Amino acid sequence: MGRVVVEVMPKPEILDPQGKAVNGALPRLGFTGISQVRQGKRFEITVDGPVTDEVLADVRRAAETLLSNPVIEDVVKVEADNTDAAVDATSTTQIPA
Amino acid sequence: MGRVVVEVMPKPEILDPQGKAVNGALPRLGFTGISQVRQGKRFEITVDGPVTDEVLADVRRAAETLLSNPVIEDVVKVEADNTDAAVDATSTTQIPA
Repeated sequence: MGRVVVEVMPKPEILDPQGKAVNGALPRLGFTGISQVRQGKRFEITVDGPVTDEVLADVRRAAETLLSNPVIEDVVKVEADNTDAAVDATSTTQIPA
Repeated sequence: MGRVVVEVMPKPEILDPQGKAVNGALPRLGFTGISQVRQGKRFEITVDGPVTDEVLADVRRAAETLLSNPVIEDVVKVEADNTDAAVDATSTTQIPA
């Protein structure tokens, strides 16, 4: 099994009320020097089998139709996830010697 | 100005109804071969000035207190964003020759 990461952000010209709320809360909690916060979504998609180019193309299509609203959001990343957690999930069981 | 990307995901043992809903919708739209979807959050944080280690530590503290709920979520990434968009925002104005 492989894993694909999809990242979706609101388009720059779109108002982002969640990001604005976070930005407003930061100074009240003592965090200064931050001028803007934008909030988007991150998906971890586990696929049956390895992450081939075909799988990535399929996931990109899903990202652009189901995972994002193309009117107000951009898909900023569709990428195979090769971090330890993803590798762990794909590793075969080791039989102790 | 620099930019920091923060990524937050639900902990593996926590039920993720948004991810489950996406996973349920995929086969209906003709996408097969996907066994699990988990949905988290991605923040783009614009800071005044360059992204120093101190700024990153500050943003990590904010990520662990305001941007995520440590009971149910993990901060999976706090990283300076060096993509073109971020670089564009920091580039100085060029005076044409």
